[in-house]
Amino acid sequence: MIKIGIVNVSDRASAGEYEDLPGKEARALLQKYLTSDWEEAYAVIPDERDQIERTLIRFVDQEGCCLVITTGGTGPAPRDVTPEATEAVCERMMQGFGEAMRMESLKYVPTAILSRQTAGLRGKCLIVNLPGKPKAIKECLDAIMPAIPFCIDLIGGPRLECDEKYVTVFRPVDKDARRKM
Amino acid sequence: MIKIGIVNVSDRASAGEYEDLPGKEARALLQKYLTSDWEEAYAVIPDERDQIERTLIRFVDQEGCCLVITTGGTGPAPRDVTPEATEAVCERMMQGFGEAMRMESLKYVPTAILSRQTAGLRGKCLIVNLPGKPKAIKECLDAIMPAIPFCIDLIGGPRLECDEKYVTVFRPVDKDARRKM
Amino acid sequence: MIKIGIVNVSDRASAGEYEDLPGKEARALLQKYLTSDWEEAYAVIPDERDQIERTLIRFVDQEGCCLVITTGGTGPAPRDVTPEATEAVCERMMQGFGEAMRMESLKYVPTAILSRQTAGLRGKCLIVNLPGKPKAIKECLDAIMPAIPFCIDLIGGPRLECDEKYVTVFRPVDKDARRKM
Repeated sequence: MIKIGIVNVSDRASAGEYEDLPGKEARALLQKYLTSDWEEAYAVIPDERDQIERTLIRFVDQEGCCLVITTGGTGPAPRDVTPEATEAVCERMMQGFGEAMRMESLKYVPTAILSRQTAGLRGKCLIVNLPGKPKAIKECLDAIMPAIPFCIDLIGGPRLECDEKYVTVFRPVDKDARRKM
Repeated sequence: MIKIGIVNVSDRASAGEYEDLPGKEARALLQKYLTSDWEEAYAVIPDERDQIERTLIRFVDQEGCCLVITTGGTGPAPRDVTPEATEAVCERMMQGFGEAMRMESLKYVPTAILSRQTAGLRGKCLIVNLPGKPKAIKECLDAIMPAIPFCIDLIGGPRLECDEKYVTVFRPVDKDARRKM
Repeated sequence: MIKIGIVNVSDRASAGEYEDLPGKEARALLQKYLTSDWEEAYAVIPDERDQIERTLIRFVDQEGCCLVITTGGTGPAPRDVTPEATEAVCERMMQGFGEAMRMESLKYVPTAILSRQTAGLRGKCLIVNLPGKPKAIKECLDAIMPAIPFCIDLIGGPRLECDEKYVTVFRPVDKDARRKM
Protein backbone atom coordinates (compact mmCIF):
# COMPACT_ATOMS: atom_id res chain seq x y z
CA MET A 1 0.00 0.00 0.00
CA ILE A 2 1.30 3.40 -1.04
CA LYS A 3 0.54 6.25 1.32
CA ILE A 4 1.22 9.87 0.48
CA GLY A 5 0.84 12.81 2.82
CA ILE A 6 -0.33 16.28 1.85
CA VAL A 7 0.14 19.01 4.42
CA ASN A 8 -1.22 22.42 3.60
CA VAL A 9 0.44 24.94 5.86
CA SER A 10 -1.67 28.07 6.07
CA ASP A 11 -2.92 30.16 8.97
CA ARG A 12 -5.99 31.29 7.08
CA ALA A 13 -6.97 27.99 5.49
CA SER A 14 -6.59 26.21 8.84
CA ALA A 15 -8.80 28.86 10.46
CA GLY A 16 -11.46 28.27 7.82
CA GLU A 17 -11.11 31.79 6.38
CA TYR A 18 -9.97 30.40 3.05
CA GLU A 19 -10.69 27.33 1.03
CA ASP A 20 -7.79 24.91 1.08
CA LEU A 21 -6.87 25.41 -2.58
CA PRO A 22 -3.14 24.58 -2.35
CA GLY A 23 -3.75 21.20 -0.69
CA LYS A 24 -6.49 20.41 -3.21
CA GLU A 25 -4.23 21.38 -6.11
CA ALA A 26 -1.46 19.10 -4.82
CA ARG A 27 -3.98 16.27 -4.43
CA ALA A 28 -5.45 16.80 -7.90
CA LEU A 29 -2.02 16.78 -9.52
CA LEU A 30 -0.93 13.58 -7.73
CA GLN A 31 -4.22 11.90 -8.68
CA LYS A 32 -3.60 12.84 -12.30
CA TYR A 33 0.09 11.94 -12.39
CA LEU A 34 0.18 8.65 -10.43
CA THR A 35 -1.26 5.49 -11.94
CA SER A 36 -0.34 3.40 -8.88
CA ASP A 37 -3.07 3.11 -6.24
CA TRP A 38 -2.37 5.28 -3.25
CA GLU A 39 -3.98 6.38 -0.03
CA GLU A 40 -3.87 9.86 1.32
CA ALA A 41 -3.01 11.39 4.65
CA TYR A 42 -4.23 14.98 4.64
CA ALA A 43 -3.89 17.92 6.97
CA VAL A 44 -4.47 21.66 6.97
CA ILE A 45 -2.50 23.33 9.73
CA PRO A 46 -1.40 26.82 10.75
CA ASP A 47 2.11 28.20 10.22
CA GLU A 48 3.32 26.98 13.60
CA ARG A 49 6.69 25.31 13.49
CA ASP A 50 6.02 22.72 16.20
CA GLN A 51 2.66 21.79 14.70
CA ILE A 52 4.24 21.35 11.24
CA GLU A 53 6.99 19.19 12.76
CA ARG A 54 4.50 17.03 14.67
CA THR A 55 2.36 16.53 11.56
CA LEU A 56 5.34 15.56 9.42
CA ILE A 57 6.58 13.12 12.06
CA ARG A 58 3.12 11.57 12.39
CA PHE A 59 2.70 11.20 8.63
CA VAL A 60 6.09 9.49 8.30
CA ASP A 61 6.39 7.46 11.51
CA GLN A 62 2.76 6.54 12.24
CA GLU A 63 0.98 6.79 8.89
CA GLY A 64 3.87 5.24 6.96
CA CYS A 65 3.92 7.76 4.10
CA CYS A 66 6.68 7.28 1.51
CA LEU A 67 6.19 10.83 0.26
CA VAL A 68 4.92 13.93 2.03
CA ILE A 69 4.18 17.09 0.08
CA THR A 70 3.81 20.34 1.97
CA THR A 71 2.28 23.45 0.43
CA GLY A 72 2.84 26.99 1.66
CA GLY A 73 4.94 28.65 4.31
CA THR A 74 8.13 28.79 2.24
CA GLY A 75 8.51 32.52 1.63
CA PRO A 76 10.29 35.19 3.69
CA ALA A 77 7.25 36.37 5.69
CA PRO A 78 7.75 36.09 9.47
CA ARG A 79 5.20 33.28 9.78
CA ASP A 80 6.81 31.22 6.96
CA VAL A 81 8.64 28.41 8.74
CA THR A 82 7.85 25.29 6.70
CA PRO A 83 11.48 24.82 5.54
CA GLU A 84 12.76 25.12 9.12
CA ALA A 85 10.23 22.53 10.33
CA THR A 86 11.15 20.25 7.43
CA GLU A 87 14.87 20.44 8.12
CA ALA A 88 14.25 19.80 11.82
CA VAL A 89 12.52 16.46 11.20
CA CYS A 90 14.75 15.23 8.35
CA GLU A 91 17.89 13.19 8.87
CA ARG A 92 19.46 14.11 5.54
CA MET A 93 18.67 16.99 3.19
CA MET A 94 18.15 16.96 -0.59
CA GLN A 95 19.37 20.40 -1.72
CA GLY A 96 18.77 19.63 -5.38
CA PHE A 97 14.99 19.84 -5.04
CA GLY A 98 14.97 23.43 -3.82
CA GLU A 99 17.53 24.46 -6.41
CA ALA A 100 15.55 22.84 -9.24
CA MET A 101 12.25 24.39 -8.15
CA ARG A 102 13.74 27.88 -7.83
CA MET A 103 15.45 27.50 -11.22
CA GLU A 104 12.13 26.51 -12.78
CA SER A 105 10.18 29.32 -11.10
CA LEU A 106 12.83 31.84 -12.19
CA LYS A 107 11.59 31.31 -15.74
CA TYR A 108 8.34 32.96 -14.69
CA VAL A 109 9.09 35.46 -11.91
CA PRO A 110 12.30 37.06 -10.59
CA THR A 111 10.89 36.70 -7.07
CA ALA A 112 11.46 32.93 -7.36
CA ILE A 113 14.68 33.53 -5.44
CA LEU A 114 12.56 34.42 -2.39
CA SER A 115 11.31 30.85 -2.19
CA ARG A 116 12.98 28.89 0.59
CA GLN A 117 11.60 25.47 -0.44
CA THR A 118 13.67 22.47 0.53
CA ALA A 119 13.36 18.69 0.70
CA GLY A 120 14.77 15.97 2.88
CA LEU A 121 14.61 12.39 4.02
CA ARG A 122 13.19 10.99 7.22
CA GLY A 123 13.47 7.20 7.36
CA LYS A 124 11.86 5.76 4.24
CA CYS A 125 10.07 8.99 3.37
CA LEU A 126 10.83 11.91 1.08
CA ILE A 127 9.44 15.23 2.32
CA VAL A 128 9.17 18.01 -0.28
CA ASN A 129 8.08 21.61 0.20
CA LEU A 130 5.96 23.14 -2.55
CA PRO A 131 4.89 26.80 -2.65
CA GLY A 132 1.43 27.99 -1.66
CA LYS A 133 0.06 29.35 -4.92
CA PRO A 134 -1.70 26.72 -7.09
CA LYS A 135 -0.02 27.88 -10.30
CA ALA A 136 3.43 27.71 -8.70
CA ILE A 137 2.60 24.34 -7.13
CA LYS A 138 2.14 22.83 -10.59
CA GLU A 139 5.29 24.45 -12.00
CA CYS A 140 7.41 23.20 -9.11
CA LEU A 141 5.92 19.71 -8.94
CA ASP A 142 6.38 19.27 -12.69
CA ALA A 143 10.07 20.15 -12.30
CA ILE A 144 10.75 17.44 -9.72
CA MET A 145 8.15 14.72 -10.34
CA PRO A 146 10.27 12.78 -12.91
CA ALA A 147 12.88 12.14 -10.18
CA ILE A 148 10.56 11.29 -7.28
CA PRO A 149 9.75 7.63 -8.04
CA PHE A 150 13.44 6.67 -8.36
CA CYS A 151 14.19 8.56 -5.13
CA ILE A 152 11.56 6.50 -3.35
CA ASP A 153 12.98 3.30 -4.88
CA LEU A 154 16.38 4.21 -3.46
CA ILE A 155 15.12 4.85 0.07
CA GLY A 156 13.36 1.48 0.12
CA GLY A 157 9.82 2.71 -0.48
CA PRO A 158 7.09 1.34 -2.75
CA ARG A 159 7.29 1.53 -6.54
CA LEU A 160 5.41 4.56 -7.89
CA GLU A 161 4.19 4.48 -11.49
CA CYS A 162 3.12 7.61 -13.35
CA ASP A 163 0.96 8.36 -16.34
CA GLU A 164 3.40 8.91 -19.21
CA LYS A 165 1.07 11.50 -20.70
CA TYR A 166 2.02 13.81 -17.82
CA VAL A 167 5.28 12.63 -16.26
CA THR A 168 8.28 10.92 -17.85
CA VAL A 169 9.63 9.05 -14.87
CA PHE A 170 13.35 8.41 -15.05
CA ARG A 171 14.79 5.19 -13.63
CA PRO A 172 18.34 4.28 -14.70
CA VAL A 173 18.35 0.83 -16.34
CA ASP A 174 21.68 -0.06 -14.75
CA LYS A 175 20.83 -2.23 -11.77
CA ASP A 176 23.85 -1.02 -9.81
CA ALA A 177 22.70 2.54 -10.17
CA ARG A 178 19.48 1.61 -8.45
CA ARG A 179 21.33 0.69 -5.32
CA LYS A 180 23.77 3.56 -5.14
CA MET A 181 24.51 6.94 -6.65
CA MET B 1 12.23 56.38 6.94
CA ILE B 2 14.13 53.78 4.92
CA LYS B 3 17.54 52.85 6.27
CA ILE B 4 19.97 50.64 4.37
CA GLY B 5 23.25 49.33 5.69
CA ILE B 6 26.41 48.84 3.65
CA VAL B 7 29.18 46.84 5.29
CA ASN B 8 32.43 46.53 3.40
CA VAL B 9 34.36 43.63 4.85
CA SER B 10 38.04 43.98 4.00
CA ASP B 11 41.21 43.75 6.08
CA ARG B 12 43.09 46.14 3.81
CA ALA B 13 40.37 48.72 3.29
CA SER B 14 39.67 48.83 7.03
CA ALA B 15 43.39 49.33 7.68
CA GLY B 16 43.43 52.25 5.26
CA GLU B 17 45.75 50.45 2.80
CA TYR B 18 43.11 50.51 0.08
CA GLU B 19 40.34 52.82 -0.89
CA ASP B 20 36.94 51.41 0.01
CA LEU B 21 35.88 50.79 -3.58
CA PRO B 22 33.44 47.89 -2.96
CA GLY B 23 31.43 49.83 -0.39
CA LYS B 24 31.38 52.88 -2.65
CA GLU B 25 30.26 50.80 -5.61
CA ALA B 26 27.40 49.29 -3.59
CA ARG B 27 26.37 52.79 -2.45
CA ALA B 28 26.54 54.23 -5.96
CA LEU B 29 24.40 51.42 -7.36
CA LEU B 30 21.76 51.77 -4.64
CA GLN B 31 21.67 55.54 -5.15
CA LYS B 32 21.12 54.98 -8.86
CA TYR B 33 18.57 52.17 -8.55
CA LEU B 34 16.38 53.43 -5.66
CA THR B 35 14.00 56.34 -6.18
CA SER B 36 12.71 56.15 -2.61
CA ASP B 37 14.51 58.37 -0.11
CA TRP B 38 16.84 56.38 2.10
CA GLU B 39 19.44 56.89 4.78
CA GLU B 40 22.65 55.01 4.99
CA ALA B 41 24.46 53.14 7.74
CA TYR B 42 28.00 52.53 6.59
CA ALA B 43 30.96 50.58 7.92
CA VAL B 44 34.33 49.33 6.73
CA ILE B 45 35.56 46.52 8.93
CA PRO B 46 38.21 43.78 8.84
CA ASP B 47 37.51 40.11 8.06
CA GLU B 48 36.88 39.24 11.69
CA ARG B 49 33.82 37.11 12.22
CA ASP B 50 32.79 38.57 15.58
CA GLN B 51 33.22 42.12 14.30
CA ILE B 52 31.10 41.35 11.21
CA GLU B 53 28.42 39.79 13.41
CA ARG B 54 28.38 42.74 15.81
CA THR B 55 28.10 45.21 12.92
CA LEU B 56 25.25 43.30 11.28
CA ILE B 57 23.38 43.05 14.59
CA ARG B 58 23.86 46.76 15.27
CA PHE B 59 22.69 47.76 11.78
CA VAL B 60 19.54 45.64 12.13
CA ASP B 61 18.62 45.94 15.80
CA GLN B 62 19.82 49.46 16.64
CA GLU B 63 19.93 51.30 13.31
CA GLY B 64 16.70 49.72 12.04
CA CYS B 65 17.95 48.84 8.57
CA CYS B 66 15.48 46.97 6.34
CA LEU B 67 18.31 45.87 4.05
CA VAL B 68 21.99 45.32 4.75
CA ILE B 69 24.41 44.71 1.88
CA THR B 70 27.82 43.30 2.69
CA THR B 71 30.70 43.37 0.21
CA GLY B 72 33.72 41.06 0.32
CA GLY B 73 34.82 38.13 2.41
CA THR B 74 32.81 35.53 0.50
CA GLY B 75 35.54 33.53 -1.21
CA PRO B 76 37.49 30.47 0.00
CA ALA B 77 40.51 32.34 1.42
CA PRO B 78 41.11 31.56 5.11
CA ARG B 79 40.11 35.08 6.18
CA ASP B 80 36.83 34.98 4.19
CA VAL B 81 34.11 34.50 6.82
CA THR B 82 31.32 36.89 5.81
CA PRO B 83 28.85 34.06 4.98
CA GLU B 84 29.49 32.37 8.34
CA ALA B 85 28.92 35.67 10.19
CA THR B 86 25.75 36.27 8.16
CA GLU B 87 24.32 32.84 8.91
CA ALA B 88 25.15 33.24 12.60
CA VAL B 89 23.03 36.40 12.97
CA CYS B 90 20.12 35.37 10.72
CA GLU B 91 17.06 33.51 11.94
CA ARG B 92 16.12 32.11 8.53
CA MET B 93 18.23 31.71 5.39
CA MET B 94 17.37 32.63 1.80
CA GLN B 95 19.31 30.09 -0.28
CA GLY B 96 17.93 31.41 -3.55
CA PHE B 97 20.02 34.58 -3.44
CA GLY B 98 23.37 32.78 -3.38
CA GLU B 99 22.23 30.36 -6.07
CA ALA B 100 21.05 33.18 -8.34
CA MET B 101 24.22 35.22 -7.89
CA ARG B 102 26.47 32.25 -8.60
CA MET B 103 24.38 31.32 -11.65
CA GLU B 104 24.71 34.88 -12.95
CA SER B 105 28.46 35.08 -12.27
CA LEU B 106 28.96 31.70 -13.99
CA LYS B 107 28.09 33.45 -17.26
CA TYR B 108 31.34 35.40 -16.89
CA VAL B 109 33.85 33.22 -14.98
CA PRO B 110 34.00 29.50 -14.09
CA THR B 111 35.38 30.49 -10.70
CA ALA B 112 31.90 31.80 -9.80
CA ILE B 113 31.39 28.46 -8.04
CA LEU B 114 34.01 29.55 -5.49
CA SER B 115 31.73 32.30 -4.23
CA ARG B 116 30.08 31.43 -0.94
CA GLN B 117 27.63 34.36 -0.90
CA THR B 118 24.43 33.85 1.01
CA ALA B 119 21.48 35.87 2.32
CA GLY B 120 19.18 35.66 5.28
CA LEU B 121 16.60 37.33 7.46
CA ARG B 122 17.03 38.86 10.87
CA GLY B 123 13.82 40.38 12.18
CA LYS B 124 12.50 42.81 9.58
CA CYS B 125 15.80 42.99 7.70
CA LEU B 126 17.20 41.20 4.66
CA ILE B 127 20.97 40.72 4.79
CA VAL B 128 22.65 39.96 1.45
CA ASN B 129 26.31 39.17 0.76
CA LEU B 130 27.81 40.64 -2.40
CA PRO B 131 31.33 39.87 -3.66
CA GLY B 132 34.28 42.22 -3.20
CA LYS B 133 35.14 43.17 -6.77
CA PRO B 134 33.18 46.20 -8.08
CA LYS B 135 32.40 44.57 -11.45
CA ALA B 136 31.07 41.44 -9.75
CA ILE B 137 29.12 43.57 -7.24
CA LYS B 138 27.11 45.07 -10.07
CA GLU B 139 26.53 41.73 -11.81
CA CYS B 140 25.30 40.12 -8.61
CA LEU B 141 23.18 43.04 -7.43
CA ASP B 142 21.52 43.29 -10.84
CA ALA B 143 20.57 39.60 -10.61
CA ILE B 144 18.75 39.96 -7.29
CA MET B 145 17.57 43.59 -7.16
CA PRO B 146 14.21 42.95 -8.93
CA ALA B 147 13.19 40.66 -6.04
CA ILE B 148 14.44 42.72 -3.10
CA PRO B 149 11.56 45.25 -2.73
CA PHE B 150 8.90 42.50 -2.62
CA CYS B 151 11.02 40.58 -0.11
CA ILE B 152 11.10 43.64 2.13
CA ASP B 153 7.33 44.08 1.69
CA LEU B 154 6.85 40.49 2.89
CA ILE B 155 8.98 40.88 6.01
CA GLY B 156 7.08 44.00 7.01
CA GLY B 157 9.62 46.61 5.95
CA PRO B 158 9.15 49.91 4.11
CA ARG B 159 8.13 50.08 0.46
CA LEU B 160 11.18 50.48 -1.82
CA GLU B 161 10.68 52.00 -5.26
CA CYS B 162 13.25 51.68 -8.02
CA ASP B 163 14.06 53.59 -11.18
CA GLU B 164 12.53 51.55 -13.98
CA LYS B 165 15.37 52.54 -16.27
CA TYR B 166 17.63 50.28 -14.21
CA VAL B 167 15.53 47.80 -12.25
CA THR B 168 12.23 46.16 -13.13
CA VAL B 169 10.86 45.50 -9.68
CA PHE B 170 8.50 42.57 -9.51
CA ARG B 171 5.53 42.66 -7.13
CA PRO B 172 2.76 40.10 -7.74
CA VAL B 173 -0.57 41.87 -8.26
CA ASP B 174 -2.45 39.19 -6.38
CA LYS B 175 -3.03 40.60 -2.91
CA ASP B 176 -2.93 37.18 -1.30
CA ALA B 177 0.47 36.52 -2.76
CA ARG B 178 1.76 39.57 -0.97
CA ARG B 179 1.01 38.05 2.34
CA LYS B 180 2.24 34.56 1.75
CA MET B 181 4.26 32.50 -0.70
CA MET C 1 55.04 18.44 -3.35
CA ILE C 2 51.39 18.24 -4.36
CA LYS C 3 49.35 15.55 -2.68
CA ILE C 4 45.81 14.67 -3.71
CA GLY C 5 43.51 12.26 -1.94
CA ILE C 6 41.00 9.96 -3.60
CA VAL C 7 38.47 8.28 -1.35
CA ASN C 8 36.10 5.81 -2.92
CA VAL C 9 33.19 5.31 -0.59
CA SER C 10 31.48 2.01 -1.38
CA ASP C 11 30.35 -0.88 0.80
CA ARG C 12 30.77 -3.38 -2.00
CA ALA C 13 34.08 -2.15 -3.39
CA SER C 14 35.58 -2.02 0.10
CA ALA C 15 34.37 -5.60 0.71
CA GLY C 16 36.09 -6.72 -2.49
CA GLU C 17 32.81 -7.63 -4.17
CA TYR C 18 33.32 -5.04 -6.88
CA GLU C 19 36.30 -3.58 -8.64
CA ASP C 20 37.01 -0.03 -7.47
CA LEU C 21 36.01 1.61 -10.75
CA PRO C 22 34.93 5.04 -9.36
CA GLY C 23 38.24 5.57 -7.57
CA LYS C 24 40.16 4.45 -10.66
CA GLU C 25 38.13 6.76 -12.88
CA ALA C 26 38.84 9.74 -10.60
CA ARG C 27 42.56 8.85 -10.60
CA ALA C 28 42.67 8.43 -14.40
CA LEU C 29 40.98 11.80 -14.95
CA LEU C 30 43.31 13.64 -12.56
CA GLN C 31 46.35 11.99 -14.22
CA LYS C 32 45.09 13.17 -17.60
CA TYR C 33 44.08 16.69 -16.53
CA LEU C 34 46.99 17.69 -14.25
CA THR C 35 50.41 18.44 -15.72
CA SER C 36 51.90 19.25 -12.30
CA ASP C 37 53.59 16.34 -10.54
CA TRP C 38 51.44 14.98 -7.74
CA GLU C 39 51.36 12.14 -5.25
CA GLU C 40 48.29 10.20 -4.34
CA ALA C 41 46.67 9.17 -1.12
CA TYR C 42 44.11 6.48 -1.89
CA ALA C 43 41.46 4.66 0.08
CA VAL C 44 38.46 2.45 -0.56
CA ILE C 45 36.17 2.43 2.46
CA PRO C 46 32.60 1.41 3.32
CA ASP C 47 29.67 3.83 3.66
CA GLU C 48 30.29 4.37 7.36
CA ARG C 49 30.13 7.99 8.41
CA ASP C 50 32.82 7.80 11.10
CA GLN C 51 35.19 5.93 8.81
CA ILE C 52 34.69 8.50 6.04
CA GLU C 53 35.31 11.33 8.51
CA ARG C 54 38.47 9.68 9.88
CA THR C 55 39.83 9.10 6.38
CA LEU C 56 39.16 12.68 5.29
CA ILE C 57 40.80 14.05 8.44
CA ARG C 58 43.84 11.82 7.97
CA PHE C 59 44.22 12.77 4.30
CA VAL C 60 44.07 16.49 5.16
CA ASP C 61 45.81 16.72 8.53
CA GLN C 62 48.42 13.93 8.30
CA GLU C 63 48.92 13.34 4.57
CA GLY C 64 48.80 17.07 3.75
CA CYS C 65 46.48 16.79 0.74
CA CYS C 66 45.49 20.09 -0.88
CA LEU C 67 42.58 18.40 -2.63
CA VAL C 68 40.53 15.35 -1.67
CA ILE C 69 38.05 13.85 -4.11
CA THR C 70 35.45 11.43 -2.80
CA THR C 71 33.41 9.18 -5.06
CA GLY C 72 30.08 7.61 -4.14
CA GLY C 73 27.73 7.77 -1.22
CA THR C 74 26.00 10.98 -2.32
CA GLY C 75 22.51 9.72 -3.23
CA PRO C 76 19.39 9.32 -1.09
CA ALA C 77 19.90 5.62 -0.19
CA PRO C 78 20.02 5.05 3.57
CA ARG C 79 23.73 4.14 3.52
CA ASP C 80 24.66 7.29 1.51
CA VAL C 81 26.32 9.58 4.06
CA THR C 82 29.35 11.02 2.26
CA PRO C 83 27.96 14.61 2.25
CA GLU C 84 27.20 14.44 5.98
CA ALA C 85 30.74 13.20 6.71
CA THR C 86 32.19 15.92 4.49
CA GLU C 87 30.24 18.68 6.19
CA ALA C 88 31.24 17.35 9.62
CA VAL C 89 34.98 17.67 8.92
CA CYS C 90 34.88 20.96 6.98
CA GLU C 91 35.16 24.37 8.60
CA ARG C 92 33.49 26.24 5.76
CA MET C 93 31.26 24.96 2.97
CA MET C 94 31.42 25.69 -0.76
CA GLN C 95 27.78 25.44 -1.91
CA GLY C 96 28.63 26.41 -5.48
CA PHE C 97 30.28 23.07 -6.26
CA GLY C 98 27.19 20.99 -5.54
CA GLU C 99 24.96 23.44 -7.39
CA ALA C 100 27.23 23.42 -10.45
CA MET C 101 27.50 19.62 -10.53
CA ARG C 102 23.74 19.14 -10.21
CA MET C 103 23.12 21.76 -12.91
CA GLU C 104 25.54 19.95 -15.23
CA SER C 105 24.08 16.49 -14.50
CA LEU C 106 20.57 17.85 -15.09
CA LYS C 107 21.51 18.16 -18.77
CA TYR C 108 21.66 14.36 -18.88
CA VAL C 109 19.20 12.97 -16.31
CA PRO C 110 16.28 14.48 -14.33
CA THR C 111 17.42 12.40 -11.34
CA ALA C 112 20.43 14.73 -11.01
CA ILE C 113 18.40 16.54 -8.35
CA LEU C 114 18.76 13.44 -6.15
CA SER C 115 22.48 13.99 -5.88
CA ARG C 116 23.51 15.45 -2.54
CA GLN C 117 27.12 16.23 -3.49
CA THR C 118 28.79 19.04 -1.64
CA ALA C 119 32.26 20.52 -1.12
CA GLY C 120 34.03 22.30 1.69
CA LEU C 121 37.28 23.50 3.14
CA ARG C 122 39.30 22.00 5.96
CA GLY C 123 42.49 23.95 6.62
CA LYS C 124 44.41 24.26 3.36
CA CYS C 125 42.43 21.53 1.63
CA LEU C 126 39.41 21.49 -0.66
CA ILE C 127 37.23 18.39 -0.26
CA VAL C 128 34.82 17.67 -3.13
CA ASN C 129 32.22 14.92 -3.43
CA LEU C 130 31.81 13.28 -6.83
CA PRO C 131 29.11 10.72 -7.65
CA GLY C 132 29.78 6.98 -7.83
CA LYS C 133 29.14 6.21 -11.48
CA PRO C 134 32.21 6.65 -13.74
CA LYS C 135 30.29 8.48 -16.45
CA ALA C 136 28.82 10.92 -13.94
CA ILE C 137 32.22 11.33 -12.27
CA LYS C 138 33.65 12.72 -15.51
CA GLU C 139 30.66 14.99 -16.16
CA CYS C 140 30.83 16.45 -12.67
CA LEU C 141 34.62 16.81 -12.51
CA ASP C 142 34.64 18.54 -15.90
CA ALA C 143 32.11 21.06 -14.59
CA ILE C 144 34.23 22.12 -11.61
CA MET C 145 37.85 21.43 -12.64
CA PRO C 146 38.43 24.88 -14.25
CA ALA C 147 37.84 26.51 -10.84
CA ILE C 148 39.80 24.09 -8.63
CA PRO C 149 43.38 25.38 -9.14
CA PHE C 150 42.40 28.98 -8.30
CA CYS C 151 40.51 27.75 -5.25
CA ILE C 152 43.66 25.97 -4.05
CA ASP C 153 45.71 29.11 -4.73
CA LEU C 154 43.30 31.07 -2.52
CA ILE C 155 43.48 28.66 0.41
CA GLY C 156 47.29 28.75 0.37
CA GLY C 157 47.92 25.43 -1.36
CA PRO C 158 50.35 24.52 -4.15
CA ARG C 159 49.94 25.74 -7.71
CA LEU C 160 48.16 23.18 -9.88
CA GLU C 161 48.67 23.30 -13.64
CA CYS C 162 46.39 21.52 -16.08
CA ASP C 163 46.68 20.27 -19.64
CA GLU C 164 44.93 22.90 -21.73
CA LYS C 165 43.71 20.21 -24.11
CA TYR C 166 41.35 19.05 -21.38
CA VAL C 167 40.86 21.83 -18.84
CA THR C 168 40.86 25.59 -19.29
CA VAL C 169 41.95 26.69 -15.86
CA PHE C 170 40.71 30.13 -14.89
CA ARG C 171 42.88 32.40 -12.76
CA PRO C 172 41.90 36.09 -12.68
CA VAL C 173 44.83 38.23 -13.85
CA ASP C 174 44.05 40.94 -11.32
CA LYS C 175 46.50 40.36 -8.46
CA ASP C 176 44.07 41.69 -5.89
CA ALA C 177 41.48 39.19 -6.96
CA ARG C 178 43.90 36.40 -6.14
CA ARG C 179 43.95 37.42 -2.54
CA LYS C 180 40.28 38.03 -2.00
CA MET C 181 36.92 37.52 -3.62
